[in-house]
Amino acid sequence: MDRVYLDHNATTPLRVEARAAMIAAMDVVGNPSSVHAEGRAAKLLVERARVEVADLVGCKPNQVIFTGSATEAAALAAAQANQHGGGFSSAQTEHDCVLAWHDTDAGCLRAVSAANSETGVMQVDGCVVPSPDSYSVLCDITQMAGKMPVQYRDHQTPSYMILSAHKIGGPKGVGALINFTSEDPVALLKGGGQEMGRRSGTENIVGIAGFGAAATAARRDVAHGRWERVAELRNILEKALEAASKKTIFVGKAETRLPNTSCFITPGWKGETQVMQMDLSGFAISAGSACSSGKVRASKVLLAMGYSEQEAASAVRVSLGLDTSEDEIMRFADVWADKLTKHEARAA
Amino acid sequence: MDRVYLDHNATTPLRVEARAAMIAAMDVVGNPSSVHAEGRAAKLLVERARVEVADLVGCKPNQVIFTGSATEAAALAAAQANQHGGGFSSAQTEHDCVLAWHDTDAGCLRAVSAANSETGVMQVDGCVVPSPDSYSVLCDITQMAGKMPVQYRDHQTPSYMILSAHKIGGPKGVGALINFTSEDPVALLKGGGQEMGRRSGTENIVGIAGFGAAATAARRDVAHGRWERVAELRNILEKALEAASKKTIFVGKAETRLPNTSCFITPGWKGETQVMQMDLSGFAISAGSACSSGKVRASKVLLAMGYSEQEAASAVRVSLGLDTSEDEIMRFADVWADKLTKHEARAA
Repeated sequence: MDRVYLDHNATTPLRVEARAAMIAAMDVVGNPSSVHAEGRAAKLLVERARVEVADLVGCKPNQVIFTGSATEAAALAAAQANQHGGGFSSAQTEHDCVLAWHDTDAGCLRAVSAANSETGVMQVDGCVVPSPDSYSVLCDITQMAGKMPVQYRDHQTPSYMILSAHKIGGPKGVGALINFTSEDPVALLKGGGQEMGRRSGTENIVGIAGFGAAATAARRDVAHGRWERVAELRNILEKALEAASKKTIFVGKAETRLPNTSCFITPGWKGETQVMQMDLSGFAISAGSACSSGKVRASKVLLAMGYSEQEAASAVRVSLGLDTSEDEIMRFADVWADKLTKHEARAA
Repeated sequence: MDRVYLDHNATTPLRVEARAAMIAAMDVVGNPSSVHAEGRAAKLLVERARVEVADLVGCKPNQVIFTGSATEAAALAAAQANQHGGGFSSAQTEHDCVLAWHDTDAGCLRAVSAANSETGVMQVDGCVVPSPDSYSVLCDITQMAGKMPVQYRDHQTPSYMILSAHKIGGPKGVGALINFTSEDPVALLKGGGQEMGRRSGTENIVGIAGFGAAATAARRDVAHGRWERVAELRNILEKALEAASKKTIFVGKAETRLPNTSCFITPGWKGETQVMQMDLSGFAISAGSACSSGKVRASKVLLAMGYSEQEAASAVRVSLGLDTSEDEIMRFADVWADKLTKHEARAA
């Protein structure tokens, strides 16, 4: 039987539009920095993608700085914060690429993710990106972008946003820093002066073309309300799991969450074990975020939310994609319930 | 008539093997950091490519750190040099991504490119990478890799090497730092701990797969002596240009050069003008390296070699690829000679 992929927050398959744009970009011979026709064609492709990403997040094209990942985008913003004498001030629930630059003493840039990757809980007001206050704000929209519209309250934007292509159906290895400030960030990568001097290095044109196409497709799908059906499936899944296990806790269920994410704790049944057992049965899910899922430890996100060590270690995340079917969801629920029964029989 | 691309040192078209590997990698769904089957498949793809790149340059797989460019690889080595209290000590002929970290006072890592990108002149002994002496050495093999075998004298390696996929027929936006030292470099990008903690951020698996396939194909072509024919064509080109213009100077002709590169100065005829005129006639060549070719200024490489401002501003680079034909070369020489005659008539 086909495998069922339910780990879309870790990464989601390449959209057909992104795939087509990438294959087309493979025929673009030139270096975007070259002045001849081949170079100009490559440059045009990058600039077209920049407009597409800008349209997804509602900024001007020259506010988009292409990077190799959201992680690199965070590092670029952190380098700029460092110029102002500090790092990020952030909660322990943030992604490691943000926490790496956490500065307890002198945080001058408040970093907050729009939606938490492990729980799907929205940390900003609905899908409204926080408006700046006494702090400058970096908003990590990696999980939210492409699932909900990016909106700004009273046209107020944060200072920076970071996002990643592969979470919206583009390729892995491309991200962007959205720079709403009037300052160019300090370049981490220096040399040829690409990205208007803000990020040197020959552009990943195949990846950038895929990012642009994915952004356009993602924006269309959000506009068409395609995630509403995904939210329904997620709710159906949670009802089925609840019916199978009274003790299972659904994290953040009372909060506004991403439409596709369910994080649930079944005390006493380790998340790592659940992931392995479900994997052997053909289902891909995760315990914690992908980046930290190789490390066997309780989710720091859940610990920060007040769950115990034992509870945090007993959580898994199921994250749906646009093409997830009800049949897949129900098969997951059945197999999971069966594994749980066996687990409880062994534990008894 | 088809355009003739003669700017392979700026970037060279994607090899068919790289293209196929990239398209195959598009179907790999997982995040390499995920523990389930989809994640392990993605991880395997990255590790297979790592072995292929290691085989090209003659190092161990765990000495290969994948980056987004050779520029990023240089920045990573520079951050490590900075830990030891200095930057790079390098000649003004080095690429801007190396010169950016030049430190006149406290250079502790000597940076040298195996072959100069503008002139093709080999700066190391034949194709032998320099052995370490009192300095630690970073060797930029971006232009040399995939055109000549990478060899080490007495099994002595430099401390670091940097290279880029798109110069060997892989995609743009992927590079590697080869770390021969026993120290892990200070990570510039922090977070999920990818690349054994040395470069966080979800891996560009499509690009990395292309890099690996290009490395294997490039190694095969070097072994099969395919560049010898390219060197012959380059020499035929230079003879034809010489016959058309007695005053043209071929830079580094007496030195050991890359097989595919010809840099020539025609005093009084601006390189920028030549590039534009040849572009309009269907030929892609460059004045200076791609990264700096957008900037109208005399090549610093040629100035550093002792050429005058006027001479340095009158240079162009023609760089051939494996598939360049004799017909293309001869058409170039004919059109160039015709443009030169017209230029001289106007100047007279």
